Amino acid sequence: MEEVIKKAADVTEKVCEWQPPEKLKALLDLELKDTGENHQKLLQFCRDVIKFSVKTNHPRFFNQLYAGIDYYSLAARFITEALNPSVYTYEVSPVFLLVEDAVLKKMIEFIGWEEGDGIFNPGGSVSNMYAMNLARYKYCPDIKEQGLSGMPRLVVLTSDECHYSVKKAASFLGIGTQNVYFIKSDERGKMIPEELEKQVLRARKEGSAPFFVSATAGTTVLGAFDPLDEIADICERYGLWLHVDASWGGSALLSRKHCRLLHGIHRANSVAWNPHKMLMAGIQCCALLVKDSSGLLKRCYSANASYLFQQDKFYDVSYDTGDKSIQCSRRADAFKFWMTWKALGTTGLEERVNRALALARYLVDEIKKREGFQLLLEPEYANICFWYIPPSLRNMEEGHEYWEKLHHVAPAIKERMMKKGSIMLGYQPHRGKVNFFRQVIISPKIYLVIPEIEPETLCMERAQYEL
Amino acid sequence: MEEVIKKAADVTEKVCEWQPPEKLKALLDLELKDTGENHQKLLQFCRDVIKFSVKTNHPRFFNQLYAGIDYYSLAARFITEALNPSVYTYEVSPVFLLVEDAVLKKMIEFIGWEEGDGIFNPGGSVSNMYAMNLARYKYCPDIKEQGLSGMPRLVVLTSDECHYSVKKAASFLGIGTQNVYFIKSDERGKMIPEELEKQVLRARKEGSAPFFVSATAGTTVLGAFDPLDEIADICERYGLWLHVDASWGGSALLSRKHCRLLHGIHRANSVAWNPHKMLMAGIQCCALLVKDSSGLLKRCYSANASYLFQQDKFYDVSYDTGDKSIQCSRRADAFKFWMTWKALGTTGLEERVNRALALARYLVDEIKKREGFQLLLEPEYANICFWYIPPSLRNMEEGHEYWEKLHHVAPAIKERMMKKGSIMLGYQPHRGKVNFFRQVIISPKIYLVIPEIEPETLCMERAQYEL
Repeated sequence: MEEVIKKAADVTEKVCEWQPPEKLKALLDLELKDTGENHQKLLQFCRDVIKFSVKTNHPRFFNQLYAGIDYYSLAARFITEALNPSVYTYEVSPVFLLVEDAVLKKMIEFIGWEEGDGIFNPGGSVSNMYAMNLARYKYCPDIKEQGLSGMPRLVVLTSDECHYSVKKAASFLGIGTQNVYFIKSDERGKMIPEELEKQVLRARKEGSAPFFVSATAGTTVLGAFDPLDEIADICERYGLWLHVDASWGGSALLSRKHCRLLHGIHRANSVAWNPHKMLMAGIQCCALLVKDSSGLLKRCYSANASYLFQQDKFYDVSYDTGDKSIQCSRRADAFKFWMTWKALGTTGLEERVNRALALARYLVDEIKKREGFQLLLEPEYANICFWYIPPSLRNMEEGHEYWEKLHHVAPAIKERMMKKGSIMLGYQPHRGKVNFFRQVIISPKIYLVIPEIEPETLCMERAQYEL
Repeated sequence: MEEVIKKAADVTEKVCEWQPPEKLKALLDLELKDTGENHQKLLQFCRDVIKFSVKTNHPRFFNQLYAGIDYYSLAARFITEALNPSVYTYEVSPVFLLVEDAVLKKMIEFIGWEEGDGIFNPGGSVSNMYAMNLARYKYCPDIKEQGLSGMPRLVVLTSDECHYSVKKAASFLGIGTQNVYFIKSDERGKMIPEELEKQVLRARKEGSAPFFVSATAGTTVLGAFDPLDEIADICERYGLWLHVDASWGGSALLSRKHCRLLHGIHRANSVAWNPHKMLMAGIQCCALLVKDSSGLLKRCYSANASYLFQQDKFYDVSYDTGDKSIQCSRRADAFKFWMTWKALGTTGLEERVNRALALARYLVDEIKKREGFQLLLEPEYANICFWYIPPSLRNMEEGHEYWEKLHHVAPAIKERMMKKGSIMLGYQPHRGKVNFFRQVIISPKIYLVIPEIEPETLCMERAQYEL
């Protein structure tokens, strides 16, 4: 615990101890044998596993849309691991079902619905799938029994900046990736409502059945928020289910200052929201929230297994909510978030969001001040996208050669940083733009760190990249 | 930890502290407020959560197909909770991806394949879905892009004793529950191969497209094993994908004595196997294993998101296996099982299986000896299904009234046991049989307990039920 919690979060330690795959395989004794190992050996395994694992709690881990550690959540996670519950029936998980219900209700309140329904899922991708299937069931309940063969071609609409899980969902659900119509977004990455309407009309003209719009509140790369209110107008006009993938951006709902980013979300039929990202609830903590409170979720998903969901129990079986899920055994993911919420209160969570966005602002200001750093665009949210321009490129004209060379900069810097263990930061090419870094600052440790480290190393190593 | 690990596993303590939902809600302060609570209050919440949670580690928890606690797995789970990894790319989860690979390879070895592929999923239900979608992709790769509209009606075949997730999968994947053909099973709950062949022919005659057979190795209620070898013959004859849902029964593969239950499993195209059940790896630990080693899993599932699965990384990106998944963030579920396997060796896991089945045998013998207990059928595996016949029914003729009255016995005894906190045991009606108990003995604590408690209380409370 010293190693994995304290040392891992120490800024003077490495964020990762890089080893290439083949070498790491040789270093770790991975093979599973006939006989067991002694405790000394097992402890050494644990130390090695910790040593060579990435410290996602480290203040310089900026590689994904999550970071940092919340000790209240962690305590709750230790409790659930030790109790080893499975959340399907009240008889087996009385506390965790009630806790899940309390958390869902509170999240629903922040969305702005008077009532609703929901379920915690293993990932925002899965929540998006649930929503798509639920919308399909609402559109045509017969599909549950009869399937899609012989049905009109269903069409899903989402922006070209959406998370890739929308495509995966369409494929998995038998709708097909070709039947995902990607709506153009503007230069900031926001879906263009007029383009959405055009595509709805196109789908109708083709004789297919548009039924589901997945808007994004906080896109993965740029952190853009689709204009929900205008999209909701179109959905209402054409009778389409509006789902909001707020896996990343949903947390802004807790901030009175920033909740306007999701203006109109109360008009959605369903929302995916992952407290394991900015709110640091721990992987995984992901809710699908549904506006319907007539039992649609249960009607859509239930299989009424008589060995598990007996109807002759001695308590109110409406508390046995597991049949709303595609899973059978299911983890008590709501509890860790409940514990954090209890500990910090809504105001503490709000502060967490405000701080992340203030730090993002700070980073933007620093990038603007410094030579060799160039913002990709003014951020709306916590995703700061930028290029580092090495000295050799600073005076070059921004032509083909420039971009070609710049494209190789981020991967090369990343390689150096990883091998040094100094910082972990994501990069990607995007929409015709060459490789750039994306930095997201979530960990509360960053506040403490800012004054103590040199400004040059706040966002990235003093880059000495020479092409 | 004293409360949740030591006390919870103490046979002299209660297995549950029953409270009805409304009362428990009032006892727990579930509401999430604006301001946080102090540490004293938070500790009290933890104590309450533990107090009112079911102790699945308690020696008298027989309610599900999992029980007990493995301390090695638990240590590993604490480590992963603290490291908070997400298993998609080697750069973020170097150790856990290699560990997953090592565990999958070893499981594949026990299935009897020379090579293969696989992935850990949040539940056996999800594994079954993966397999069904994978088989569909293999059957017609175009479905990934084009969807099912306009395609012939796909048909899934499984036994009438299968897990309900097969039906949920067919619904979720757009195949439709009506297109699941349930094959008759014999009186022991095993799929009848001749009936399977009949249904395949029927589906063909109807012009539909049978493509997937889901056999079960260890059914949920009766613990029956479908005759895999004979089913494989039929699948080969008709070119059908053979999936084996060995979520429950797969662990028998580790026992040289009992692996014959799964004779023929090496002929399957895919296998679902949950080490969180009999092998006690902790909820959840569920692998889908695939015989294909040509990359089918990746081709079927990949979406090639460029922000996550960059191709210009400085290491061998074939280690970035996350794109095989429908999830984006994914937990390191293989690690806890790896740790247990390392600690116990294959022989230790084998012993765990052998012990569970020896205890099942012991229970059967005891049931046969005692007045008022009646076996439903001779078990093949660890599921012991039986009725308790109260004195008032023992001399009654087995007619309508007898069964009608017996039907109410199990729920009534269960209610008493729950309220007393003495034992948790599942019951269900099944295939026209009135409510009976199903007991599964997994916890290694049971060995220690046997000599210390009165024989009458081993399997159930001294039942004083009078109708």
